[in-house]
Amino acid sequence: MTIIRDVVVTPVAFRDPPLLNAAGVHQPYALRSVIQVVCDDGVVGLGETYGDDSVLARLRAIAPTLVGRSVFDLNGIRATVEAVVSGVAARDPDRLTGEASQSRAVLSAYAPFEVACLDAQGKALGVRVVDLLGGPARDTVPFAAYLFYKWGGHPGEPPDAFGPALDPDGVVAQARAMVERYGFRSIKLKGGVFPPEQEVTAIRALRKAFPDHPLRLDPNAAWTVETSRWVAAELDGVLEYLEDPTPGIAGMADVARTTRVPLATNMCVVAFEHLPEAVKRDAIDVLLCDHHYWGGLRLCQALATMCQTFGIGLSMHSNTHLGISLAAMVHLAAATPALAYACDTHYPWTVDDVVQPGALRFVDGSVPVPEGPGLGVELDHDALAHLHDTYLRCGIRRRDDAGYMRTVRPDFAPPRGSW
Amino acid sequence: MTIIRDVVVTPVAFRDPPLLNAAGVHQPYALRSVIQVVCDDGVVGLGETYGDDSVLARLRAIAPTLVGRSVFDLNGIRATVEAVVSGVAARDPDRLTGEASQSRAVLSAYAPFEVACLDAQGKALGVRVVDLLGGPARDTVPFAAYLFYKWGGHPGEPPDAFGPALDPDGVVAQARAMVERYGFRSIKLKGGVFPPEQEVTAIRALRKAFPDHPLRLDPNAAWTVETSRWVAAELDGVLEYLEDPTPGIAGMADVARTTRVPLATNMCVVAFEHLPEAVKRDAIDVLLCDHHYWGGLRLCQALATMCQTFGIGLSMHSNTHLGISLAAMVHLAAATPALAYACDTHYPWTVDDVVQPGALRFVDGSVPVPEGPGLGVELDHDALAHLHDTYLRCGIRRRDDAGYMRTVRPDFAPPRGSW
Ligand SMILES: [Mg+2]
Ligand SMILES: [Mg+2]
Repeated sequence: MTIIRDVVVTPVAFRDPPLLNAAGVHQPYALRSVIQVVCDDGVVGLGETYGDDSVLARLRAIAPTLVGRSVFDLNGIRATVEAVVSGVAARDPDRLTGEASQSRAVLSAYAPFEVACLDAQGKALGVRVVDLLGGPARDTVPFAAYLFYKWGGHPGEPPDAFGPALDPDGVVAQARAMVERYGFRSIKLKGGVFPPEQEVTAIRALRKAFPDHPLRLDPNAAWTVETSRWVAAELDGVLEYLEDPTPGIAGMADVARTTRVPLATNMCVVAFEHLPEAVKRDAIDVLLCDHHYWGGLRLCQALATMCQTFGIGLSMHSNTHLGISLAAMVHLAAATPALAYACDTHYPWTVDDVVQPGALRFVDGSVPVPEGPGLGVELDHDALAHLHDTYLRCGIRRRDDAGYMRTVRPDFAPPRGSW
Repeated sequence: MTIIRDVVVTPVAFRDPPLLNAAGVHQPYALRSVIQVVCDDGVVGLGETYGDDSVLARLRAIAPTLVGRSVFDLNGIRATVEAVVSGVAARDPDRLTGEASQSRAVLSAYAPFEVACLDAQGKALGVRVVDLLGGPARDTVPFAAYLFYKWGGHPGEPPDAFGPALDPDGVVAQARAMVERYGFRSIKLKGGVFPPEQEVTAIRALRKAFPDHPLRLDPNAAWTVETSRWVAAELDGVLEYLEDPTPGIAGMADVARTTRVPLATNMCVVAFEHLPEAVKRDAIDVLLCDHHYWGGLRLCQALATMCQTFGIGLSMHSNTHLGISLAAMVHLAAATPALAYACDTHYPWTVDDVVQPGALRFVDGSVPVPEGPGLGVELDHDALAHLHDTYLRCGIRRRDDAGYMRTVRPDFAPPRGSW
């Protein structure tokens, strides 16, 4: 029954451009953890998640406790993860909410193992993960162009291949490059970087350049309720949705009451325990799911049913990630009919990968479901070793966009809810 | 990939004792539909659901549309069912709610095919359905003794083996026989048959005879809000939960406001669309799921996550059923940690079956998860032929407890919400 013989957790680091956001700027290297669930029948299941040292410590504490379990025993593995994580308390404030949450720590720690076990199940049985999840409601999964304000290169380094984007013209140029190269049919701009009126101008410029592309703006809760209402009024009829204009469920509800623009979130509803209040206050129109912190693919599907039940649209959130996560996102979105919005992905910003090339590609802005069994991707062991070596050498052990920004602008403070 | 070559829908009828309830009394024969999903690789997946002629017509309309599909293509099959059922409008009022509901018709029609496809998946892959659903959170599933007031036998026939139960002493004797034979550790009494004070007396008698068994009472919405409050006050501290004392979400919420006894339902929340109002009004403490009308095993698991999220306990509902449904109920409950209450089952009242004996058994009130691949049960083709023959000869084409009661008591009217 495909019993786990070993679980290997490998931290990796890979080049990341200086993408700007409300929290600061992306460091020169992004971190991820790659999980290999090695089974007695020779099958190896793959998972991927955050690589911050606090996450890594949890994954490493969990890994040995899974040896001897069946990859089909997901309920048992989740219970094991819960037991281990309860012993390693969530001391770090949660990146998205700012609060420490034990339940979020458990579901985040469980998720990459769930994905790896589903990959192993599929490889052992000769079926795709999408088939284990109910079969493809779509054969190819639409993604959105994910635009960022960015510097031309990291400080002290030569300009990168993407070039700068520091005003509306730069944003439009970036969008043209992205759309031309990948064929994206939806566009999202990460905001919260410049004064709100400049970001409104950028959206108007995008609308002019791309009259038919659905547009989204996500300032990562940088704004006050008042500013959010002003932006929503300005961009009424222009935006497909406005993502996290202001912090908290109560603040989002205040904005929602006075705008017709759909409000989306991946910041104020990031765990099942947040849903009752969001529903009660009618705070959100769209939820961005993310299997990395909602507890894996199956729980994201349960979340999809919940969103349908309560009249909430479903989209998908992304952090900087590699090909294992992209494959998992594609299988999940393909098997989840309710996921009707184009998904987010940072993948075009990533030039490195740990999976063998060929399985993942963009066609007209969409990623076809990989065809092999399981997730349909295989590790490139040389690339994994190289990126692990980069991890060992790069000196970065946790994501810190604000700290990195302060090396350039010592007085930087994230505008959270104040702009 | 295990392609469907043929779908066989067989209506069956089997002996049912004269069990009394608020709607009337069980007819001499209960109806079910048995589904065989016959695949190109020789695998046959089994499903079971209601056998009323309106249900049967829908199942028969759906069956040929599934030929050529993969048993893994559950999303596609659900879409097909939706398309077919939309063409065969739900004209019959829903048995549980009294209202016609298109979404309920779709999910009820889809459910037995989902179960049959999961059975076929498991048989094709050599794994159990519980493993496809996340693995066993428990290896054996606790059920409750399901007590009924009943006549000694059907009118004009000799007494049946179960004997009469028409007063508290009869109920206690029935409970003793059930508990002795099956080892049940929870007890449920179907009420709504005698005046409420007599049913309160029966519960007190059960409490005296079984001081440690959790007890439930289910009058099927026979009572007024006022009566419900009185019963709840009388049995506060005695009942594990009070099930559907009065009709409707608003009525249940009225009762809930004034009692500490947990209120359960399988009548006012029977579809996802009912959950928002139930949550808003805080109307229920426990939901009885039933894969036959919640759209199959996977959607019941999504429902479980939803109930956890909104602080609603989860139990399981039963109608009169055969072994295929029992196997499906056991796999679902085993794979669903949140299902913490002992499940309902009518199975002990059924002396016939369509599955080969041996796979399903009660041990200390629980049913161990069958061990074979898929659901772990196999058709007994002779038994199926016999019960189909019974169907052809019995003359019953839909369940009608009230009509059958009126052959004995011409003035009978269900007390719905009036007692
Ligand atoms: Mg966001
Ligand atoms: Mg009931």
